[in-house]
Amino acid sequence: MTQATQSTTATFKALKCKECGTEYEPKATHVCEFCFGPLEVTYDYDALRRTVTRESIQKGPNSIWRYRPFLPVVTETPIDVGTGMTPLVKANRLARRLGIKNLYIKNDAVNMPTLSFKDRVVSVALTRAQELGFTTVSCASTGNLANSTAAIAAHAGLDCCVFIPADLEAGKVLGTLIYGPTVMAVQGNYDQVNRLCCEVANTQGWGFVNINLRPYYSEGSKTLGYEVAEQLGWQLPDHIVAPLASGSLFTKIYKGFQEFIKVGLVDEKSVRFSGAQAEGCSPIAQAYRDGRDFVTPVKPNTIAKSIAIGNPADGIYALEIAKKTNGSIESVNDAEIVDGIKLLAETEGIFTETAGGTTVAVLKKLVEAGKIDPSETTVVYITGNGLKTQEAVQGYIGEPLTIEAKLDSFERALERSRTLERLDWQQVLV
Amino acid sequence: MTQATQSTTATFKALKCKECGTEYEPKATHVCEFCFGPLEVTYDYDALRRTVTRESIQKGPNSIWRYRPFLPVVTETPIDVGTGMTPLVKANRLARRLGIKNLYIKNDAVNMPTLSFKDRVVSVALTRAQELGFTTVSCASTGNLANSTAAIAAHAGLDCCVFIPADLEAGKVLGTLIYGPTVMAVQGNYDQVNRLCCEVANTQGWGFVNINLRPYYSEGSKTLGYEVAEQLGWQLPDHIVAPLASGSLFTKIYKGFQEFIKVGLVDEKSVRFSGAQAEGCSPIAQAYRDGRDFVTPVKPNTIAKSIAIGNPADGIYALEIAKKTNGSIESVNDAEIVDGIKLLAETEGIFTETAGGTTVAVLKKLVEAGKIDPSETTVVYITGNGLKTQEAVQGYIGEPLTIEAKLDSFERALERSRTLERLDWQQVLV
Ligand SMILES: [Zn+2]
Ligand SMILES: [Zn+2]
Repeated sequence: MTQATQSTTATFKALKCKECGTEYEPKATHVCEFCFGPLEVTYDYDALRRTVTRESIQKGPNSIWRYRPFLPVVTETPIDVGTGMTPLVKANRLARRLGIKNLYIKNDAVNMPTLSFKDRVVSVALTRAQELGFTTVSCASTGNLANSTAAIAAHAGLDCCVFIPADLEAGKVLGTLIYGPTVMAVQGNYDQVNRLCCEVANTQGWGFVNINLRPYYSEGSKTLGYEVAEQLGWQLPDHIVAPLASGSLFTKIYKGFQEFIKVGLVDEKSVRFSGAQAEGCSPIAQAYRDGRDFVTPVKPNTIAKSIAIGNPADGIYALEIAKKTNGSIESVNDAEIVDGIKLLAETEGIFTETAGGTTVAVLKKLVEAGKIDPSETTVVYITGNGLKTQEAVQGYIGEPLTIEAKLDSFERALERSRTLERLDWQQVLV
Repeated sequence: MTQATQSTTATFKALKCKECGTEYEPKATHVCEFCFGPLEVTYDYDALRRTVTRESIQKGPNSIWRYRPFLPVVTETPIDVGTGMTPLVKANRLARRLGIKNLYIKNDAVNMPTLSFKDRVVSVALTRAQELGFTTVSCASTGNLANSTAAIAAHAGLDCCVFIPADLEAGKVLGTLIYGPTVMAVQGNYDQVNRLCCEVANTQGWGFVNINLRPYYSEGSKTLGYEVAEQLGWQLPDHIVAPLASGSLFTKIYKGFQEFIKVGLVDEKSVRFSGAQAEGCSPIAQAYRDGRDFVTPVKPNTIAKSIAIGNPADGIYALEIAKKTNGSIESVNDAEIVDGIKLLAETEGIFTETAGGTTVAVLKKLVEAGKIDPSETTVVYITGNGLKTQEAVQGYIGEPLTIEAKLDSFERALERSRTLERLDWQQVLV
């Protein structure tokens, strides 16, 4: 083991197979040699309990790195571009509209630097990539991950090559190219992109954040659990609703809560975990509905491209958590997703992408089905920004009223718009 | 005076004419009745010195409202959607590229909720609008302000009508409509929109954030000064570079620094203030270059629409500050603006809109002209996000390499791109 991979202050210990428990040195590897199970980072929780306090965390930087002892890096100077510590907004107007009482939005639509939760996992992965000696980083992406990898690699001075499906939203392509990486647009869906990247990872010696660096990368999502706990005044919510793509985010929020309980930072509590998928790519929701404990791959067909993973790597773990915490997994169609985006924007002033629209629409569905208790403290995870998927809402949000730069032109337009509004209401009443 | 306009805990006192000094009650008014000068909020600085400490600020919320005693609101529960406390990023790679040593980016491209510094001024203005009893809020906007007013009004449950020039970037129009306000697209430039809004403000009884609420609104920009001082460890930088539109941002950062000195939160220090304009709309830069102490209005023609104000309300005050602090005011053309956007993205992983491209390009120009000392601690203000002005860089950032989902297709594309890169370098060398 090289010096860079471990230090006396690091509290992470090894990689461990989630299935058979075999341990590995913390290098760039992600699959068990014996059973092909996924590898996960282990920590010295006794050391964490002794050394980490609420105060020591609060004294840390205003970013995910305040939780550094819980993250799989050695360095004391990780790549910190202000990622994390996004607002937990009390969503009173949305709550009233839905008929519930204690609703919060964890708003990663304004995460730094590229406006999605992926900045968390990439900050961790690229810090670890540097420790492991990689000079080129890469990823297989549905868009947000490409944005984030390209941006943070630019900041850190790492070479970067990203792989995306060729049919991605314009904002996500441009929002990657701007940072100057090599961009490979693959003719195929995400699952095909991912398979290709697994081959490339074996031949190029690059650090793929979500392949050979995946055990480190995925730990970054735990911070979405830590922050919510800290922002709620060091307690856990009753219920969370999060989108399901590969399922990794969901399982890591769970792990984050469990770790905070384990080291005594919050009181023990069982939190219900509910998951959201788009109907056009809902393999985990289908398994949940059918009572299966395995996930059958599907071919994605939805506007919610950022969560359109037909063969979700951590699907079965997400399924297991939803079941054992008494949560639900639900799906919504594309029209409901657009309505979800608009509902969140109109009630809370938060503009999310299709993944967030999916999550809000599922929240609504769960409330209507009585699967969320109106008094439960519920946290909804919004994971990306609507400016990246403008195509999804174009045509569903009306148009500006064009006027001349004259008072009477304005007054006529205002009168017209009020008349139209009244007619709308009359139609509603009739 | 109604109860809502003052309280025992508020430290702001009155509105005062910047020209003749006449004082007014803190209502919805912005122009002196005697001399037509702009009104500004005054504070009880003795009370502030006695009651505010670095520690009391640090204990406050992680938003602009940690500086509430310096802001013109009465309530202890202002509209807080997590606005402010954006990262101050040490920009080592950009600094090296430019040949300077101590460069920081204040990154409001990731401000909350709508990704520009306008969220600061709007949070203050709408909080004050509620205190003054307004139920409909409005603004004259070049785009970012419309996004912000619509979003925060939605969160607060206020009715909203915004006015924009009809030729605005698609992302800024959509990023306003999504929140459900009335949007008036005026056939004319910003200065014409603004004149119309002044008339509307007199007839409709609405709270226009940047007209009748302007004295409160503009104070929000002071937080860009406070945060930089706090984030530098309670000291002021040597030099700041900020974009100039109306000139208000610039003067309020200055006021923020002066206030922190006045109440003893930072040591006295003279900070150089340099301003950035787009050549196609550079009335303040022209006045600076010509040595005038007045600003002659121009007709805007630039891709930097968010700062294209031909008749800047606070232009002369900005001019005065640049001169007396030994700063500069410089302008750059549209091609340099695009290069500025790319330079910041490629070196620091920050994607800014045209206003930020202008500021970075001016920074470069000032360094090259020897107007920024390489060892000065320099802070550059990036005020908005590039996802809103995608048109500006489209066509200047290359295209993805389209490949099949096969290893050999990838390898051929990679070889091609490396050959092209080598050819590029050879051309550079020849
Ligand atoms: Zn195994
Ligand atoms: Zn006056």
